[in-house]
Amino acid sequence: MRLTEAEAAARRGVREVLADVATDAPVIVALSGGADSLALAAATAFVAAKDGLTAEALVVDHGLQDASAEVAEQAVRQARTLGLAARSVRVEVGTAGGPEAAARSARRAALLDAAGPGGVVLLGHTRDDQAESVLLGLGRGSGARSLAGMRAVDGPWRRPLLVLTREDTETVCRAHATTWWDDPHNADVRFRRSRLRTEVLPLLEDVLGGGVADALARTADLLRDDADLLDHLAAQVDRPSDVGVLAALPEALRSRVLRRSALEAGASPAETGAVHVAALDQLITRWSGQERVELPGGVSCRREGSSLIFGPTPVAG
Amino acid sequence: MRLTEAEAAARRGVREVLADVATDAPVIVALSGGADSLALAAATAFVAAKDGLTAEALVVDHGLQDASAEVAEQAVRQARTLGLAARSVRVEVGTAGGPEAAARSARRAALLDAAGPGGVVLLGHTRDDQAESVLLGLGRGSGARSLAGMRAVDGPWRRPLLVLTREDTETVCRAHATTWWDDPHNADVRFRRSRLRTEVLPLLEDVLGGGVADALARTADLLRDDADLLDHLAAQVDRPSDVGVLAALPEALRSRVLRRSALEAGASPAETGAVHVAALDQLITRWSGQERVELPGGVSCRREGSSLIFGPTPVAG
Repeated sequence: MRLTEAEAAARRGVREVLADVATDAPVIVALSGGADSLALAAATAFVAAKDGLTAEALVVDHGLQDASAEVAEQAVRQARTLGLAARSVRVEVGTAGGPEAAARSARRAALLDAAGPGGVVLLGHTRDDQAESVLLGLGRGSGARSLAGMRAVDGPWRRPLLVLTREDTETVCRAHATTWWDDPHNADVRFRRSRLRTEVLPLLEDVLGGGVADALARTADLLRDDADLLDHLAAQVDRPSDVGVLAALPEALRSRVLRRSALEAGASPAETGAVHVAALDQLITRWSGQERVELPGGVSCRREGSSLIFGPTPVAG
Repeated sequence: MRLTEAEAAARRGVREVLADVATDAPVIVALSGGADSLALAAATAFVAAKDGLTAEALVVDHGLQDASAEVAEQAVRQARTLGLAARSVRVEVGTAGGPEAAARSARRAALLDAAGPGGVVLLGHTRDDQAESVLLGLGRGSGARSLAGMRAVDGPWRRPLLVLTREDTETVCRAHATTWWDDPHNADVRFRRSRLRTEVLPLLEDVLGGGVADALARTADLLRDDADLLDHLAAQVDRPSDVGVLAALPEALRSRVLRRSALEAGASPAETGAVHVAALDQLITRWSGQERVELPGGVSCRREGSSLIFGPTPVAG
């Protein structure tokens, strides 16, 4: 996009994701100092001034890198120059789930805390981030939902920049004479997302002839629509533990009803995948008196007569 | 898989894709001389002998490479050694759509011709081919159907080896002391599919931590189920050109109804993509008196009152 288009798209994005939010609700911009979040700060400053919003940029300093306090203060100054109130907050990062997950979790808690009840958090994810999410989902192989990427509106989390590329956000920053900070982790091959960005996407662009990030983002949008409708239809199935009812459903609904029943019984959402759902499916479509199917999270399912029964996995004794 | 598993899976695959075929119908094995098609020939020879099928391997010689006649004759001899009747046929390859597409089209015509009405053609596509198809579909960005890969049963075309990896087919060949021919095009970076195989998939495996071909094949299966159901539901929508009806549909159905109407009016299926469907959608959801929407294949759509009207694009005059 040209500058004027990119700026207009960013501002329109901010207005769109705030459409359902009260004018006086706190709007927190998650600021990292990168080009994406600075472009978001610029767009939010513009919209806030025009529309009279209570907006503020928050830099969450994980203290994980030597220069992190300095990077945080620099980002705060830049946001203020862009016309947005800004501050930084230092958080403690745990270790659960690895360094990336722990930092993310601490960051999200701090942002939600700043927004408070009724407030929202604007995130600077771009179309390139969306493309990376789809590729990560491909590696899971769990169908439409795992390829459906991130939503523009997801509870308090709002992503106004999903239609912009990372390059567009750099164009916006340059126009404001704002220099952004390139997180060294972004080029660090230890992290999956970084490798998708720096190695896989450029290779795919080359092999498939360009436009791949765009195609991946479009894929995410289309599959999200599909998954929303199919989840909705699955939720309306009457007597979802009845084998006769389940057997008569199209595969696309049966798999969703089974997954839903498993999660309602307490199976772990993150770990219950296509493999487990396929095992449950066999209790219906290839019944030959199987044992119970064990699911992640200490839940299992057995067939009794023409019913599927979910419950805690009995302790072996 | 170990050899016995791979052989058993291949034979089971052959039996499954022939379940709906008359016992005396001609079964043609598409033979290239590669490991996949030789493993398929071996499995088909076994099943044919046991079940009394009329099966034959056919090598289609495109005459595109210097040694092609020799490769064809070698493959014919190997199939006979595996216990299957075999012959080769030389075809003329046109130029339409580029060399890969033209060769494919000539090959498919020769195979269908050999099968005749009521006959079927067995193709040696493996799980790796399925994974490559999904990645190609990603580059199109046209949603579930373009990621849904190849069906095991698709009219006269049957793919019994989709559960095997390419490596499994090599295991089967080794067990029959059959040496396969590695098509030099398979390592030729001029071809998209070859580059996906030799560059993109190994990199994705490395970055995402293994199991990617498997995950891609599983994705294809799940999305095919989704696309089948959603296409079915879209086909049942009553008064599909009524703007009020269309506006009330969930996005996943509205996009499919619009695409279907466009194709029924004569728009080109290969070229009508998500971008065109999105433009049609705006006639409904963002109506502001737009001009007609032009679609590939000389078809266009305009809104008149509360109806969408598809027809030939008028010649400018």
